[in-house]
Amino acid sequence: MRVILIIGVGRSASSLIQYLLNKSEKEQLHLIIGDLSLDLAEKITNNHPNATPIALDIFDKNQRKEAIQKASIVISMLPAHLHIEVARDCIVYKKHLVTASYISDAMQELDALAKENNLVFMNEIGLDPGIDHMSAMKVIDQIKDKGGNMLLFESFCGGLVAPESDTNLWNYKFTWAPRNVVLAGQGGAAKFVQEGTYKYIPYCNLFRRTEFLEVEGYGRFEAYSNRDSLKYRSVYGLDDVLTFYRGTIRKVGFSKAWNMFVQLGMTDDSYSMEDSENMSYREFVNSFLPYHPTDSVESKMRLILKIDQDDIMWDKLLELDLFNRNKKVGLKKATPAQILEKILSDSWTLQPNDKDMIVMYHKFGYELHGKKEQIDSKMVCIGEDQTYTAMAKTVGLPVAMATLLILNGKITTPGVQLPIRKEVYLPILKELEEYGVVFKEQTMPYLGYNPDKNFN
Amino acid sequence: MRVILIIGVGRSASSLIQYLLNKSEKEQLHLIIGDLSLDLAEKITNNHPNATPIALDIFDKNQRKEAIQKASIVISMLPAHLHIEVARDCIVYKKHLVTASYISDAMQELDALAKENNLVFMNEIGLDPGIDHMSAMKVIDQIKDKGGNMLLFESFCGGLVAPESDTNLWNYKFTWAPRNVVLAGQGGAAKFVQEGTYKYIPYCNLFRRTEFLEVEGYGRFEAYSNRDSLKYRSVYGLDDVLTFYRGTIRKVGFSKAWNMFVQLGMTDDSYSMEDSENMSYREFVNSFLPYHPTDSVESKMRLILKIDQDDIMWDKLLELDLFNRNKKVGLKKATPAQILEKILSDSWTLQPNDKDMIVMYHKFGYELHGKKEQIDSKMVCIGEDQTYTAMAKTVGLPVAMATLLILNGKITTPGVQLPIRKEVYLPILKELEEYGVVFKEQTMPYLGYNPDKNFN
Repeated sequence: MRVILIIGVGRSASSLIQYLLNKSEKEQLHLIIGDLSLDLAEKITNNHPNATPIALDIFDKNQRKEAIQKASIVISMLPAHLHIEVARDCIVYKKHLVTASYISDAMQELDALAKENNLVFMNEIGLDPGIDHMSAMKVIDQIKDKGGNMLLFESFCGGLVAPESDTNLWNYKFTWAPRNVVLAGQGGAAKFVQEGTYKYIPYCNLFRRTEFLEVEGYGRFEAYSNRDSLKYRSVYGLDDVLTFYRGTIRKVGFSKAWNMFVQLGMTDDSYSMEDSENMSYREFVNSFLPYHPTDSVESKMRLILKIDQDDIMWDKLLELDLFNRNKKVGLKKATPAQILEKILSDSWTLQPNDKDMIVMYHKFGYELHGKKEQIDSKMVCIGEDQTYTAMAKTVGLPVAMATLLILNGKITTPGVQLPIRKEVYLPILKELEEYGVVFKEQTMPYLGYNPDKNFN
Repeated sequence: MRVILIIGVGRSASSLIQYLLNKSEKEQLHLIIGDLSLDLAEKITNNHPNATPIALDIFDKNQRKEAIQKASIVISMLPAHLHIEVARDCIVYKKHLVTASYISDAMQELDALAKENNLVFMNEIGLDPGIDHMSAMKVIDQIKDKGGNMLLFESFCGGLVAPESDTNLWNYKFTWAPRNVVLAGQGGAAKFVQEGTYKYIPYCNLFRRTEFLEVEGYGRFEAYSNRDSLKYRSVYGLDDVLTFYRGTIRKVGFSKAWNMFVQLGMTDDSYSMEDSENMSYREFVNSFLPYHPTDSVESKMRLILKIDQDDIMWDKLLELDLFNRNKKVGLKKATPAQILEKILSDSWTLQPNDKDMIVMYHKFGYELHGKKEQIDSKMVCIGEDQTYTAMAKTVGLPVAMATLLILNGKITTPGVQLPIRKEVYLPILKELEEYGVVFKEQTMPYLGYNPDKNFN
């Protein structure tokens, strides 16, 4: 039996573990599933004969080292900043490592040691980052292999609610860490390049500079820019491309409405509000509005945000019960962002029968044999239920597949890696199709970056 | 002769040194004027018999210690973060110290040692902070001494261009560090309290939430909120006051126009722009606008900022020559804020005959013998020329006066101080009047915080 140590049973562990357990007989796998909560580990293991749940505190050095020593390969599903101690132990005990997180500077520093020890440290092999890299590199390599010259690359991804569960005016529910949704776009200007011109968008304008996307059968989406698109140019071998842009997908209208919170300062996470615990939702809102001796919170809100009497923006605010005098925040020393997250969670939490949806969309512009062309590649994945969500599938399955490919000697390139090589993306993208993660590619005339299709 | 060591010959040194030299005979003073540039020190000393210019590098420990040892009292006009080494030496050699800067945590830590050694470390004794504290505390103490109960305190200050030199559409020129003007309001939400309600304004709304002020003979001004008004409540003994607000004064219309730069992201100081050196002003502007294959930078700018064809906002932008194709930025690896500062400096640098102006405005609301009243206190100071500016006078003179009062044993309270005691503010405010720094106080009906004067 080959032992796979899985550290951290988070939201994306379900599909990951199910995949590996399903293969455990044939592939002779034994899973050790470690979490701070033994209960959580036991639940997900569900008495499967080829799995052992253990309580594992990664801050307990001896516990951590002992678990890692026993494994053939380690999967870390911990929060990104906690991988590094696990990674260092993997070097010491010569174990391969798989994570779905962005490569940190600390992780990158282990590259030489991983190579020396012939170890594969595969990172960024979830959804975004993960499937985005793989599905993009597949098409980019195809174009280059034919002798094409890349001109444009745009890539969009979003975790949304499935159409059948889309029941609110925001067309949005929390399908992943709500805190990340509230803080999205903060911490620096968005940077990208369009037709050779560098563009920068500050946070206060980010949600007003969306692009639109059409996905057949699912309607129209919008995307706001990710923070730093530029750093992936060299990773993808696209340093000279004219347009390089990465964005986050929402249903049309979300960003315009979200911008209301940004403008008022409700997404700020840098200070605690006075007496936040006893504050009502209405008082929270009023904290961001000018003082007036008689005007209502509602009137002040409409005035400052310039919301007309018949504007759907207003209904979106009402739907969140923002002006309620009786609902209390109940959080001590909370930041505006923490309070907003609480208020939104009242409305945006997935209900037991709700399903989530992942949408990914790439555009590839290129010149081949003197002719400019474009390929659009789109993927939609809908969750099965609240355990086997689209997010869990698209994050967990690539991790699981990569783990098995490394164990079986199919992925061999040592060092700190991300999934941009054919040995990785070809088998995984192919196998993902069996699980409903299918990219549809279509060729079309090249438009360049030109959203209005205007050449006058 | 009593030796005063002045470290750092900055823009506010002129009036400070002139004041002390004028008193040097009568008060038996000898000034040692140290600056990194001996040339600058010599120029300002101008061969006065009671002054010695020296080259002084405060990072040279021995040089610094030697100079401090010789003095009876030390004035540090260095940038705020450089005071601390000087202050530590002042403890060692038992010298009083005067600065015009906010008390840093490091400075505050010296409080016990300064008291032990019976030393006065007087800080925040320039204009803002400085004259604001003194002129506010004078009225607050008067009200309290009569048995009044403070309800409201609002305080505004601005460094502007004098009416006779006010020649541009922004009604603004740089009369102080331009970088601070470009970065104003960044780094956290503005916080204050109005009629008992805490209010928070994010940076992106700061310049759209101005208040208006009327100063007889000088017209209408506006003010945007300072970052953290709340921390001075306890300093002023106003913890229970209903309204506490501090703001920065501009001529009406400045903030609305400045907000254009904020919205576009041009005041961002957190990243360097690609190839900033060779960028034209026009290209700089275009970096913050959406890409379009044919639309002009001007049209895109009008569209994103919603500037009508006849809006004065547009003329303000044109006046800055923002759309010039031929003017190059010429700064390597520059941030948007650095580039904007450069562009603004082309238009907003004081001309040789220009004069500056300081405006300060306090509002005091209180209840006395069951009756609510309000006092408004206003001060306008206009500079003489480019050397004896209003800024140099209002920053430098209080520093000089405090120094002499400490030397003469009139200010005696030891420890790390700011000028909120009668022994400090009474003599200094009185003497400042001789130099044209005069506060006009008027009593009026109490309105509370109620800008529309609306009680319906």
